[in-house]
Amino acid sequence: MAETVRIACCQLTPDVEDSVRSAARARAALGTAIAEGAQIVILPELAHCGYVFGSAQEARAAAQAADGELLAGWAQEAGRGDALVIGGFCELAPDGRVFNSSALVDGGGVLAVYRKLHLWNDESHWFAPGERPAPVVETRYGRVGLGICYDIEFPELTRGLALAGADLIALPTNWPRDSPPREEPILHSLALTTAYLSRVFVAVCDRGGSERGLDFQGGSVVAAPNGALLSAAAPGGGEQTLVADCELRQARDKRNGPRNDAFADRRPERYLAMLAQDPSAV
Amino acid sequence: MAETVRIACCQLTPDVEDSVRSAARARAALGTAIAEGAQIVILPELAHCGYVFGSAQEARAAAQAADGELLAGWAQEAGRGDALVIGGFCELAPDGRVFNSSALVDGGGVLAVYRKLHLWNDESHWFAPGERPAPVVETRYGRVGLGICYDIEFPELTRGLALAGADLIALPTNWPRDSPPREEPILHSLALTTAYLSRVFVAVCDRGGSERGLDFQGGSVVAAPNGALLSAAAPGGGEQTLVADCELRQARDKRNGPRNDAFADRRPERYLAMLAQDPSAV
Repeated sequence: MAETVRIACCQLTPDVEDSVRSAARARAALGTAIAEGAQIVILPELAHCGYVFGSAQEARAAAQAADGELLAGWAQEAGRGDALVIGGFCELAPDGRVFNSSALVDGGGVLAVYRKLHLWNDESHWFAPGERPAPVVETRYGRVGLGICYDIEFPELTRGLALAGADLIALPTNWPRDSPPREEPILHSLALTTAYLSRVFVAVCDRGGSERGLDFQGGSVVAAPNGALLSAAAPGGGEQTLVADCELRQARDKRNGPRNDAFADRRPERYLAMLAQDPSAV
Repeated sequence: MAETVRIACCQLTPDVEDSVRSAARARAALGTAIAEGAQIVILPELAHCGYVFGSAQEARAAAQAADGELLAGWAQEAGRGDALVIGGFCELAPDGRVFNSSALVDGGGVLAVYRKLHLWNDESHWFAPGERPAPVVETRYGRVGLGICYDIEFPELTRGLALAGADLIALPTNWPRDSPPREEPILHSLALTTAYLSRVFVAVCDRGGSERGLDFQGGSVVAAPNGALLSAAAPGGGEQTLVADCELRQARDKRNGPRNDAFADRRPERYLAMLAQDPSAV
């Protein structure tokens, strides 16, 4: 496990109206980040094609196979720097279904693909929901857990990734700009408390700009296990690359006080029944 | 279910060196809050006796039976205003064990007692850990879920309370002053994200002051289901009563977008296995 890992979030402004530019821009941004020393590079959700599809046909036309040229290109860039790339892409599955997915690749190719479990708004019109749990992948830099955007609002998923051993939870994101009830973007509050509660690193690579009338937050953020924001985009920001040097091994230490431990202190036999229940029955 | 409920958090400064004053001050504060119109009044953790015990004997000497005079006094105050009182107390159980507990009482007496599941630091020297899940209690004002202080760091518990139907999660707290990595107290970030993620109200009644060299945060806060801080003590604050008028029925609506719902969107079959696993096996 490396001493310190440089994580870069390439906040971009993909445009569903120009997927050729979007794909080229994503590849160029990650290539630049790697050339400048980033070891783990994260791209936004649906980084190569944009977000605001108008039809299932449009999403399908943008979809790429996991073993196709898109991820091969990301892997090629990763290989130039012994880096990892995590990025969102519109996936055409072998069975013909289309998913909102995140890929983890290194220079050797695709290490894992995660298909988003929690679809937001119109996404359910374009994408099939994922069917497998979010994965944690052992890499040369540490263990990386995968999620996408709205997934961060499900503590079952983020806590689950941490309990499965993730040192870093990486979330490609397309966060529609919200009207937060306070100055700090909710995305930053979510990232820092997710990190703090499970003593993990959390990296959200959001997108900026707008597409077809939908404005995005531009709220990329990297949070440390103590709840510090290591790097955060100014709200409303456009294209920029956030960089944070992270000692991922810190996430292996769950102690949160002289006699306490965020994981060992859990009392699973006292709350799993509560989590399993069907709230609609209340 | 009432239209709007006035919630008061009586942030106090109990002192383990003077439990008589502490107990009187707690009762006076809740009486005043009720007289001024509060319908749900929350006191800090161990409100009647202070926190920094020096020995198990000292904790035992402070402990009160749930059917004893302490809670009868709180119930008497509650009865003056048709109010509910939630407060932390040092509990002497019928079997002789001592617990760090929270009681929910109304004018008729004790409705529920919750024994803290997650003990912080030296607490495990003075208290037995709770053995029953945190409860959700149906009341005239709505459904109240109980937790205490460090419990807020366990999303399994807070999410569980919300899934069990809590409209309000009430947490008597004694939060040692931390050195947050940012300006906002972590306690406020935790309260607002807990509220936001499960679309519930969260009320933390913290304490201020210091005892035997330990400074407390004075970080009481009431958060709304949209993540707004309805009322928040200034960090480092001492005795004060926070008031927030809450439409608790808002917590029955888990919709978080035109096509989304914080609860219905869950995919429990995709993550419960992760939550059940033993992280020490990773």
